[in-house]
Amino acid sequence: MPHIPSATVSRLVTYLRILTELRERGVERTASDDLARDAHVSAFQVRKDLAYFGRFGTRGAGYVVETLQDELRRILGLDRPWNAAIVGMGRLGGALADYPNMDAYGFSLRAAFDSDPAKVGSAVGGLTVQPMSDLAETAKRESLDIALLTVPAEAAQTATEALAAAGVRGILNFAPVVLDAPSGVHVESADFLAGLTRVSYYLHANLAEHDGASVAG
Amino acid sequence: MPHIPSATVSRLVTYLRILTELRERGVERTASDDLARDAHVSAFQVRKDLAYFGRFGTRGAGYVVETLQDELRRILGLDRPWNAAIVGMGRLGGALADYPNMDAYGFSLRAAFDSDPAKVGSAVGGLTVQPMSDLAETAKRESLDIALLTVPAEAAQTATEALAAAGVRGILNFAPVVLDAPSGVHVESADFLAGLTRVSYYLHANLAEHDGASVAG
Repeated sequence: MPHIPSATVSRLVTYLRILTELRERGVERTASDDLARDAHVSAFQVRKDLAYFGRFGTRGAGYVVETLQDELRRILGLDRPWNAAIVGMGRLGGALADYPNMDAYGFSLRAAFDSDPAKVGSAVGGLTVQPMSDLAETAKRESLDIALLTVPAEAAQTATEALAAAGVRGILNFAPVVLDAPSGVHVESADFLAGLTRVSYYLHANLAEHDGASVAG
Repeated sequence: MPHIPSATVSRLVTYLRILTELRERGVERTASDDLARDAHVSAFQVRKDLAYFGRFGTRGAGYVVETLQDELRRILGLDRPWNAAIVGMGRLGGALADYPNMDAYGFSLRAAFDSDPAKVGSAVGGLTVQPMSDLAETAKRESLDIALLTVPAEAAQTATEALAAAGVRGILNFAPVVLDAPSGVHVESADFLAGLTRVSYYLHANLAEHDGASVAG
């Protein structure tokens, strides 16, 4: 298995979204040109991304939407359920707990944790908030795979280490900090301030172009 | 100005985070090896990413933390304020409106919108929720640059077009859909379900390795 660039993994998620929508609309076949247009990348990029995982589609006839959707779900590990917990039940944690249809995407929310005794015991999105001291036992009982980490920035590294010690192997980090991931733990970022900064870069770069100036200064 | 890969832009945000933390800790100088370790990339990658924007640091002496932080802030467009609005005042929109210190990151939250008459007029995070019909006028008055788009998936494309028509040029999309961005509008994704799917991929790929099986099937 070659090393798969993280940008390819992100694009596979995008292709799967597009295929799911095509299938819902009853479209049976598609081509790399069409996927490329909808994903805002080149058709070469689509073919290159898919080629990491084998041969899909037929030259000239394109892809069968249902087959490629199923293959991408399998490649992305979405053909099995994942057990998830939210760590940090502030406003963002509460919003995620109430998010509709997380199950429909293959993620089963099994537990919610907070270090604040005032929050422990409260009901959020069908779950009862547990203290962080329950983490290890609950992680084992519920076979927790993934944590949505919504604690404040200054608490994120400590929580990450507690999650690793409890055997949780995947973390989606919402805090605006770069985590030092323990061995065997995979961290992805869902940090909206990083997203806002990327938007800032592109607006700024574009402004600079229009002004005839270079962002390189 | 060469084309900058989007992965480079994401890493610049990470380097800036690390430099900000170093500066807070009173560290005056750093090296590409140190930045690379903290960012979980190679030192070659750090030097390559920075080289797009000019020459920073001195061979053998590394980088002055304060200087490189300032340069990255300038490159990323964070040396000026951006005016932002939240579109979609459900639970996620509400959580974002209450997010502490968005200002400290250079983003000034100026308005909040919702299409639900029951939400219009309510106070959230110091703002009064406005109807979508106010968008064009408010966007002009407040010089809105960026929208945090937190509407349901099925409403995201229509809201994107309304934002583009109102002159908003940057969108951070939280909905789990691939938007067709109008000309002149830059869209970045802050979609947590895509983040969960990336975690799923890495856990699945890692499992497959441990099982001696290939994810390529």
